[in-house]
Amino acid sequence: MTARIVDVETIDVRFPTSRALDGSDAMNEAPDYSAAYVILHVGDDGDGTADDAGPQVSEGHGFTFTIGRGTDLAVGAAEAIGRRAVGMSVDEITGDLGGFSRHLLGDSQLRWLGPDKGAIHLGAAAVINAAWDLAAKRAGKPVWKLLADFTPRQIVDLVDWRYLKDALTPEAALELLESRVPGRAEREAYVREHGYPAYTTSAGWLGYDDEKLARLCREAVEQGWDSVKLKVGANIDDDVRRCRIAREIIGPDRRLMIDANQTLGVDEAIEWADALKEFDIWWFEEPTSPDDVLGHAAIQCRIAPVHVATGEHAHNAVMFKQFLQAEAIGICQIDACRLGGVNEAVAALLLAAAHGVPVCPHAGGVGLCELVQHLSVFDYVAVSGSMEDRVVEYVDHLHEHFHDPVRVEGSRYRVPEAPGYSAQIRRETLEAHRFPDGPVWSDDAAPVTS
Amino acid sequence: MTARIVDVETIDVRFPTSRALDGSDAMNEAPDYSAAYVILHVGDDGDGTADDAGPQVSEGHGFTFTIGRGTDLAVGAAEAIGRRAVGMSVDEITGDLGGFSRHLLGDSQLRWLGPDKGAIHLGAAAVINAAWDLAAKRAGKPVWKLLADFTPRQIVDLVDWRYLKDALTPEAALELLESRVPGRAEREAYVREHGYPAYTTSAGWLGYDDEKLARLCREAVEQGWDSVKLKVGANIDDDVRRCRIAREIIGPDRRLMIDANQTLGVDEAIEWADALKEFDIWWFEEPTSPDDVLGHAAIQCRIAPVHVATGEHAHNAVMFKQFLQAEAIGICQIDACRLGGVNEAVAALLLAAAHGVPVCPHAGGVGLCELVQHLSVFDYVAVSGSMEDRVVEYVDHLHEHFHDPVRVEGSRYRVPEAPGYSAQIRRETLEAHRFPDGPVWSDDAAPVTS
Repeated sequence: MTARIVDVETIDVRFPTSRALDGSDAMNEAPDYSAAYVILHVGDDGDGTADDAGPQVSEGHGFTFTIGRGTDLAVGAAEAIGRRAVGMSVDEITGDLGGFSRHLLGDSQLRWLGPDKGAIHLGAAAVINAAWDLAAKRAGKPVWKLLADFTPRQIVDLVDWRYLKDALTPEAALELLESRVPGRAEREAYVREHGYPAYTTSAGWLGYDDEKLARLCREAVEQGWDSVKLKVGANIDDDVRRCRIAREIIGPDRRLMIDANQTLGVDEAIEWADALKEFDIWWFEEPTSPDDVLGHAAIQCRIAPVHVATGEHAHNAVMFKQFLQAEAIGICQIDACRLGGVNEAVAALLLAAAHGVPVCPHAGGVGLCELVQHLSVFDYVAVSGSMEDRVVEYVDHLHEHFHDPVRVEGSRYRVPEAPGYSAQIRRETLEAHRFPDGPVWSDDAAPVTS
Repeated sequence: MTARIVDVETIDVRFPTSRALDGSDAMNEAPDYSAAYVILHVGDDGDGTADDAGPQVSEGHGFTFTIGRGTDLAVGAAEAIGRRAVGMSVDEITGDLGGFSRHLLGDSQLRWLGPDKGAIHLGAAAVINAAWDLAAKRAGKPVWKLLADFTPRQIVDLVDWRYLKDALTPEAALELLESRVPGRAEREAYVREHGYPAYTTSAGWLGYDDEKLARLCREAVEQGWDSVKLKVGANIDDDVRRCRIAREIIGPDRRLMIDANQTLGVDEAIEWADALKEFDIWWFEEPTSPDDVLGHAAIQCRIAPVHVATGEHAHNAVMFKQFLQAEAIGICQIDACRLGGVNEAVAALLLAAAHGVPVCPHAGGVGLCELVQHLSVFDYVAVSGSMEDRVVEYVDHLHEHFHDPVRVEGSRYRVPEAPGYSAQIRRETLEAHRFPDGPVWSDDAAPVTS
């Protein structure tokens, strides 16, 4: 009997977060946090023998994060791309996750809608992430551990090097990974014991008034957070006032970051950074268009020692390659669902490590914290080998909907232990939040925003 | 009575071009040329008075070009974005086409799927192009003439300058446009008389064998073409042989261009250019990833005086800004449907003119020739003021399906005269080619490829 992918189930899941302005920022006024959700269903050839791995690993779960309208397009893209997996043997997929990723991304007709960007790439990410969940569950390991147990050669083979070789050759990546092999066991033990550092964005959403901002900053300090991030970019005077409030409450020793969510032009961003300089900003996130490598480089050059940070909207590894080549960022913020799943995230981790730039993943939304913790723990154990100046974003939203939610204690992520990618949303949530027919959306008291 | 957009009709139109390998290249093996097609329907407030402009301008037609699978996603995006136009007054739209474009692109939830890239941007382009068709028909002018009669201020106001100001300020753009006003009438008369130069890609598709290539090159010479473009990038020895065949037939004085359709890495592209140097290549198109500004800059630096050309997959004006800032391209190839419609194409024309780089638009596909001729004629009359080193791509495919097809005579485009954007596909074609239920696709003899 050969276990194969027999079906790709897709679900449009939306949470009505816009009703409370959770997640509001200067660009994203009223998001409904959503997911284009994918379940890869495994069956066998029908010869009557049971799948050795048992029924509990007959599904791989993955998703991409969206913010409301348009989730249907990401779902449609996941369906179109997922079709390419149906009929493939599970061993073929899990035995060559690099080849599987290239196969999914290689549809020459779908590629026209990207390439490697927009809805089609978000859909691919959901399917690829589901394949990693499946592979890890079948291996009985969390994804970070599956990755961290790979040989350097296996890790290098996960990546599509076609457009990256001018910045990092596969041979140089192999050498880097081999140099980290000796310390892997020690670092794994360390991160299991001490966890991985986090920072909170919960305090600083733009829709909150000064009083709520102050209260949330105080709570962040009481809860032991070392770093706090504020949304900025709508009005410079408001932002000076809000940064002053935050800095006074968190004191001089904790880190303060700001995030303009792409609202500014290059020169405006420099002006903004100048106006907020007195508040000792650690990083300035998404100052301008996520496509503007040269713009970020110009900003970074002018506002150092403040770091420019970007990446949550950087759509593929070619963008990260350039941000690093141009010395345009001091902090590299990969996203587990905008990049083409685990494989392309690994490419970004390798590029960042080779350039000596810390990776501080984007998280929040729906389930992004659940995913990126795997990437950062793997990065620490096997790629960069360091936690210095590295923090994973943490937002305390929607974790209750996951089977294996993140555990954050004392401003650190505990290492995930359950097999898989921590990506699985509870069935009752999928049913309640299914758009547009789930009860959350059909309730008269809850106006549908799409 | 106020004329308003009362409905946005969308149609998935596909042509089974993969059956003959027309349009094959190293990246796009078997495209089915397609369009996500949009009709903006105009009605009135229902007070019984007739719309002054009459029934013949109660529709605006637009589309974005795709190559088969995934067209449904572009259609879905056009629907979602088009919804934002329904209920708007036609005067409000045509009186401020810049504001209309910003309104369509500004949906904060849909924006997450881009921003300004991928399916969502392709869908926006279709709707924005339809609005321009409507505006031009109501003005009784072809789009190029509508644009060329705008004041410099009106042209500047079409553009979203947020992310472009560091390369070109609106004031500098205004100055450039004002400097071209004196010669407008003379250039308009010239281009009406002499047409606009074209080049042909029909000879060089990768799926054709040497004999067909030679025959098509001979025909191109007989038909009076000055420039011929070949697809390359799959095998370097094949490409040397094919370029030799082409150069021998077209002789030393005609221009030969090559197009790798993104298949190569940066170092490979340089190697390819070296191997083909003896054939006196005018431009090397899409040598590598369309996202790789720095990669193109490295290639351009190494292969000069051969020009690097790219842009058909450059998804927005921020990308063109960077290609120009980095001196990464010697030829700027805008696409009328991948950029966010006429408005963003105008932004790219202004940026290119300010940097002194010729614009040679991407065309072919379905209806791209019909659209880009308007942009190039406008560029000549009012923006760059020059035809030097400028050619519009021409592929002799599918023009018969259009109401107002391009007229190419003696290797030059005749200036379009009919009101509108030449975007309207015949109703019988829309019905026959509608995917998946049109007769072209339901015929048993014609296997559906999606």
